[in-house]
Amino acid sequence: MMAPTPTLERLPTVIQAPMAGAQNHRLAAAVCEAGGLGSLPAAMLSLDELHQQLQALQQATQRPYNVNFFCHTPPTPNAPAQAAWQSTLAPYYQAMGVERASGGAARVPFSHAAADVLQAFRPAVVSFHFGLPAPDLLARVKGWGAWVLSSATTVAEALWLQAQGADVIIAQGLEAGGHRGMFLSEDLNTQMGTFALLPQIVQAVRLPVIAAGGIATPSAVVAAQALGAAAVQIGTAYLCSHEASTSALHRAALQSSAAQHTALTNLFTGRPARGIVNRVMRELGPMHPAAPAFPLATADMAPLRAAAEAQGSSDFTPLWAGQNAASCRSAAAADITRDFLQAWRVA
Amino acid sequence: MMAPTPTLERLPTVIQAPMAGAQNHRLAAAVCEAGGLGSLPAAMLSLDELHQQLQALQQATQRPYNVNFFCHTPPTPNAPAQAAWQSTLAPYYQAMGVERASGGAARVPFSHAAADVLQAFRPAVVSFHFGLPAPDLLARVKGWGAWVLSSATTVAEALWLQAQGADVIIAQGLEAGGHRGMFLSEDLNTQMGTFALLPQIVQAVRLPVIAAGGIATPSAVVAAQALGAAAVQIGTAYLCSHEASTSALHRAALQSSAAQHTALTNLFTGRPARGIVNRVMRELGPMHPAAPAFPLATADMAPLRAAAEAQGSSDFTPLWAGQNAASCRSAAAADITRDFLQAWRVA
Repeated sequence: MMAPTPTLERLPTVIQAPMAGAQNHRLAAAVCEAGGLGSLPAAMLSLDELHQQLQALQQATQRPYNVNFFCHTPPTPNAPAQAAWQSTLAPYYQAMGVERASGGAARVPFSHAAADVLQAFRPAVVSFHFGLPAPDLLARVKGWGAWVLSSATTVAEALWLQAQGADVIIAQGLEAGGHRGMFLSEDLNTQMGTFALLPQIVQAVRLPVIAAGGIATPSAVVAAQALGAAAVQIGTAYLCSHEASTSALHRAALQSSAAQHTALTNLFTGRPARGIVNRVMRELGPMHPAAPAFPLATADMAPLRAAAEAQGSSDFTPLWAGQNAASCRSAAAADITRDFLQAWRVA
Repeated sequence: MMAPTPTLERLPTVIQAPMAGAQNHRLAAAVCEAGGLGSLPAAMLSLDELHQQLQALQQATQRPYNVNFFCHTPPTPNAPAQAAWQSTLAPYYQAMGVERASGGAARVPFSHAAADVLQAFRPAVVSFHFGLPAPDLLARVKGWGAWVLSSATTVAEALWLQAQGADVIIAQGLEAGGHRGMFLSEDLNTQMGTFALLPQIVQAVRLPVIAAGGIATPSAVVAAQALGAAAVQIGTAYLCSHEASTSALHRAALQSSAAQHTALTNLFTGRPARGIVNRVMRELGPMHPAAPAFPLATADMAPLRAAAEAQGSSDFTPLWAGQNAASCRSAAAADITRDFLQAWRVA
């Protein structure tokens, strides 16, 4: 059993948002070493991979880090719904000469098996998306002294998280890239911009609140602080960092004018997530009624994605990005982190 | 002919957003007298009413003020489209025993006839929504030295407005209440939160940029300034002021928990506008494909609205509000204005 990571005494003011599929321990470690809180996204890792990543992260930094899990309820597979989705995608399969195949990274919720792996490392911070895990699982995480963070996209979600035992609330504004953390409602009209969401959550809860969504430049850190944030969580601004594992296609899209136009889409996983508008989003519409429950949309999109990517095309690739991708810099994560840390005004 | 209002030497840092249907010259004058820039919404005024309002405003304040116009292209009436809309609303007519009748305030774009009225008053600022008027009309306004403001909801719109001769750009974030100013695209996915939109427009244009959308507390003024705003435009925070003409039903909704849930809806006018979710928005869905082109949805909704309001119900009333209505104060507009002005940090 390895030495526990240090307990967190105070929340770092800059948190690197976990970005499954675009980063691993390398980015997290670089951010930690620069004085921010690096995050390891675990949603798409097997238990073995989780163990390997944690080991690598712990070797790379002795500073506190965050491990992020999804905590959705896995859906019961629904054959007619899946067939409807397959027939929606069928014209693409036909046109591209692609064979149906199972594929796509699984997204498994936090579990006792994952907690077993995690417990050996006792990470100082564990964050969740889509609510919180069941009370017994949450108690295990809190048992080793970890701070528990989770995303709220409405005031009601923030109050729910506070009541269920979260230590810190992440106010995830509509601008944020990747999956919306929404879990009490499926109505996208409940989703607010950071200017509206952040101060309302700050006023409603007694916990520290982290601002997320649209925070991409040092001046946005100042703005978030003015609105009452105790820290900022930044994702998109790290996507083109040297240490991110963002694919070349994804990086190219982020640094093109295409990045000006993002949308919430359920085409890639079944849950609304923000990404750069690409061909399949344009042609099917970003929110499609036939997309099956999260994460069951992924498997049937995966063969199209693989075939297109093999030809250098991101037509079927989820190009997760926030609404402020213009400021994505190809730079060392440490430099990006320091710029944000310096913007934070010490009272 | 009356004395011209004083020319604007510098943009006031706090601008009261024009809110047709919820205010007249009284609110505008109170804001001007407190040191902000008051706005008179002219979109729903006849030429006679415009003249009367301008006269009253000029009698109430000697300070610079803003007059706001819509500048949409009026649609060609389309009988089948209107019939489809009528049949969508028919069950409500039947259930409520309402007779079909023409009604609802017209929304007429800026015209030479309006410019004739305006010219006698030479307002220091004229702002537009939905783009800019035709070049000859714009030239008339600029001819008497008025500053021309217009709303941009995307970077492309900001660049268009700059190229066409606007003097100042209003960056209207997704949080804003009332009509989206969007005019180059009808795709709601192009709309961004203020945290993302404001800095991108500030970076893209050489003109001063006014932040709008979600700015409801003094701390939001500080945040907007950090993101590069030259001024802030504030609407919702004035809706419950003593000088607003906001209806009692609208005020009650703003000060209830219902105000936590707004949505963009085309049900009331045909164009997307943000208001508090009420019965008709919930039942038909806030964006309905059968709603005819702006402003032709209004006339058929008006009798339902009148019948419901007569019974004390806002089920069919447009309850325009931004995403940050929680901080609506029942206070004097001068006090609200001074709080915002004091938050502005002088460099």
